[in-house]
Amino acid sequence: MDLSKYLPVWEQLTKEEQEKLSSSASYQTVPKGTILHNGSADCTGLLLVGSGQLRAYILSEEGREITLYRLFEMDICLFSASCMLHSIQFDLTIEAEKDTSFWLIPAETYRQLMEISAPIANYTNEIMASRFSEVMWRMEQVMWKSLDQRLASFLLEEEALEGSGQLHLTHELIGNHLGSAREVVTRMLRYFQEEGMVRLSRGTVEILDREKLSALARR
Amino acid sequence: MDLSKYLPVWEQLTKEEQEKLSSSASYQTVPKGTILHNGSADCTGLLLVGSGQLRAYILSEEGREITLYRLFEMDICLFSASCMLHSIQFDLTIEAEKDTSFWLIPAETYRQLMEISAPIANYTNEIMASRFSEVMWRMEQVMWKSLDQRLASFLLEEEALEGSGQLHLTHELIGNHLGSAREVVTRMLRYFQEEGMVRLSRGTVEILDREKLSALARR
Repeated sequence: MDLSKYLPVWEQLTKEEQEKLSSSASYQTVPKGTILHNGSADCTGLLLVGSGQLRAYILSEEGREITLYRLFEMDICLFSASCMLHSIQFDLTIEAEKDTSFWLIPAETYRQLMEISAPIANYTNEIMASRFSEVMWRMEQVMWKSLDQRLASFLLEEEALEGSGQLHLTHELIGNHLGSAREVVTRMLRYFQEEGMVRLSRGTVEILDREKLSALARR
Repeated sequence: MDLSKYLPVWEQLTKEEQEKLSSSASYQTVPKGTILHNGSADCTGLLLVGSGQLRAYILSEEGREITLYRLFEMDICLFSASCMLHSIQFDLTIEAEKDTSFWLIPAETYRQLMEISAPIANYTNEIMASRFSEVMWRMEQVMWKSLDQRLASFLLEEEALEGSGQLHLTHELIGNHLGSAREVVTRMLRYFQEEGMVRLSRGTVEILDREKLSALARR
């Protein structure tokens, strides 16, 4: 639980800066399903993930979701402290997708450090560029890939994350990840089942033919 | 043509830093249609737009385009110097949409300054956050809005940019902006014409009913 291990720029900070971070940061654990940040309604602070898994997504006015990216151990969640940056004009939601422990650095502490420390500011730049790249990848998927390709990619991603081809996912949950209606996902999954790529049962999608799914995702 | 006017952080720089920027920057003019940055193939440097208009877009493997954002006078193009930031893992193309003049700051000069100057690094953060916000807005449009809404928004945007409801745009060009096939755009524009919102003629879309288009865009 050593904060210095989670911040790659730690060694480039002065003793005072390190002290300031250490004394203001707190280590917290939240259960699966907790909403850690909700649009522009709050400015929780920077989250440094110790264990577990976070999901960042956007929400339409009609309540449709689309997953933008996920954060794992050692990843840093910048947008839960988006009030630090005036130019961030979009709302996203951060949810604990598993029981998750993290260091929380208050937004104001981080902002003050960033203002005077070039290493912290540049590090923040790199985090933002990473997230930006993930969102661009997602945008390209949405723009250029058909839903069958995106669904195949998603199932393989989930398998890699869970370490099992037995995925506990409802069709609605999959729809939320992909920004599609449940009915559309159900229809596509049934087609996948007919093609022998998956087996469906209540609340579960079992991957049967990884190669065929991969070929579809890459097409 | 004073570089200091284009960089809001100028006053926060040391004399040496100002000197370094001034001596390495050059003022250039390119004609409409010039590709100023092409994916990861080059690392031209930072562009500070003096006059004209730039367009940033992504390109699919099949050659389809989608416009991400535009840059105008006093805007700064960061991604033409994307090699400065290791975490940028996407390719975009920057095109001069009109005859455009700009200050060019070599990527290496800017990177060196950013590394030691917190004001420059934080300024870079704000630029990236602005672009990120624009891309998120575009992503939300693509995800949640239907093509008729997006086309209506686009035509009104163009009218505001050009200061005229007489838009010189081919259907293919509009398709490139929106990431749609020409045929789909043609069909939608014909529908708009039937509804009395626009009048179509060769290479031109004339806006007839701004209010009806606005209502559609906002729906």
